[in-house]
Amino acid sequence: MNSINLSECAKACVLCSLTCTSCAHLCLDEDSVEMMRECIKRCLDCADICDLCAHAQQRNSPFTKEICELCAKMCDYCAEECSKHQMEHCQQCAEACRKCAAECRKMAA
Amino acid sequence: MNSINLSECAKACVLCSLTCTSCAHLCLDEDSVEMMRECIKRCLDCADICDLCAHAQQRNSPFTKEICELCAKMCDYCAEECSKHQMEHCQQCAEACRKCAAECRKMAA
Amino acid sequence: MNSINLSECAKACVLCSLTCTSCAHLCLDEDSVEMMRECIKRCLDCADICDLCAHAQQRNSPFTKEICELCAKMCDYCAEECSKHQMEHCQQCAEACRKCAAECRKMAA
Amino acid sequence: MNSINLSECAKACVLCSLTCTSCAHLCLDEDSVEMMRECIKRCLDCADICDLCAHAQQRNSPFTKEICELCAKMCDYCAEECSKHQMEHCQQCAEACRKCAAECRKMAA
Repeated sequence: MNSINLSECAKACVLCSLTCTSCAHLCLDEDSVEMMRECIKRCLDCADICDLCAHAQQRNSPFTKEICELCAKMCDYCAEECSKHQMEHCQQCAEACRKCAAECRKMAA
Repeated sequence: MNSINLSECAKACVLCSLTCTSCAHLCLDEDSVEMMRECIKRCLDCADICDLCAHAQQRNSPFTKEICELCAKMCDYCAEECSKHQMEHCQQCAEACRKCAAECRKMAA
Repeated sequence: MNSINLSECAKACVLCSLTCTSCAHLCLDEDSVEMMRECIKRCLDCADICDLCAHAQQRNSPFTKEICELCAKMCDYCAEECSKHQMEHCQQCAEACRKCAAECRKMAA
Repeated sequence: MNSINLSECAKACVLCSLTCTSCAHLCLDEDSVEMMRECIKRCLDCADICDLCAHAQQRNSPFTKEICELCAKMCDYCAEECSKHQMEHCQQCAEACRKCAAECRKMAA
C-alpha cells in the first residue's frame, strides 16, 4: 500500500505535453512558419494544461475532474489544428492530443 | 524527418517528476510526517528541475547539457534522502531519481 | 502597439504562486507539521494553477476565462484552509489567495 | 518571523517569465514571423528557467545559487536576441531579461 501508481491518464498527459512542446519547436523551423502560428500557439497552451493535469493527479487534487475536463477540451482544440498540417510532427502531436483527451475524459467520468 | 522523438532521458525526467510529486504527497499522509520534511522538500525541488529538463530537451535548448547536469545532481540529492525511508513510495522515488540522474548524465556527456 | 502589458490578474497569480510555494515550505518547518498537511497540499495545488493562469493570460489563450474561473475556486479553497492557521505565513498566503481569486473573477467576468 | 518575503530576484524572475511568454506570443503575430524564430525559441526557454528559479528561491532550495547562475546565462542569451528587434515587445523583453539576469547574479554571489 501507499505505493506510487502513475495512471494511464497522467502518463498520457506528460507525453502529450512533451509532444506539444516538440511540435511547437519543429513548427518554428518549418519554411512555412507563417502558416504554423496557430498550431504553435495551441501547442504551447496544451503543453501547459497537460503538465498541470498530470501533477494534479499525482497530488490527488480535489480538482482533478475539473482539470481533466478542461485538459480534454484544450487537447481537442490543439488536435483540431495540428491535424490540418501534413508534417509528421503535427500528425504525431494530433494523435498524442487525442489520446490524452480520451484518457482525461475517462478520468473525469 | 522532423518527426518527434521522445528521448529516454526526457521520458525518465517526466516520470521522475510525477513520482516525486506523488512521493511528496504520500509523505504528507504518513503518520510520521515530521520525519518526512526533508524528503518532501527534496521531492518538490526535484520534480521542478525534472520538468524543466524534459521540456528543454524537447525544445533542443542550447542549455540542455547544463540543465541535465544540474538535474542529475538534484536527482541524486533527492534519491539520497528518499532511500533512507522504508516506505514503498520512497523506495520507488529513489529508484526513479537514480534512473533519471543516469539518463541525464548520458545526455550531458 | 504590441507592447507587453502584465495585467493585474497575471501579477496577482504569480505572486500568489510564489506565496503558496513559500507557505508550503514554511509549513514543513513548523513544529506542528502534522497539523499543516492539508494546508501544504492546498498550497501546492494552488501554486500550480496560478502559474498556468498567469501564463495562459500572457498567451491570450482562448481558454483564459475557464482557467481563471478554476483558478479562483482553487485559490478560495487554499485561502479557506490557510486562514485557519495563525502563523504569519498562512495569513499572508490566505490574503494572496483572496486577492488572486478576486482578480481572476474580474478577468473571467 | 516566518513571514513570507518575496525577494527582488524572485519577483524579477516571474515578471521576466511572463514578459518572455508574452513576447513569444506577440512575435508569432508579427508579419515577419520568419525573422522571429530564434527570438521565440529563446523566450520560451527563458520563461521556463525563470519560473524554476523563482520557485526554487521560495523553497529555499540548496541549489538556488546554481539555478540563479544558469538563469542569468539564459536571460542574457534571450536578451541578446530580443535586443536585435525593434518591436516594443522585444525591447521590453530584453529589458526584463537584463534586470532578471542582474538580480540572479546578485543572488548567486
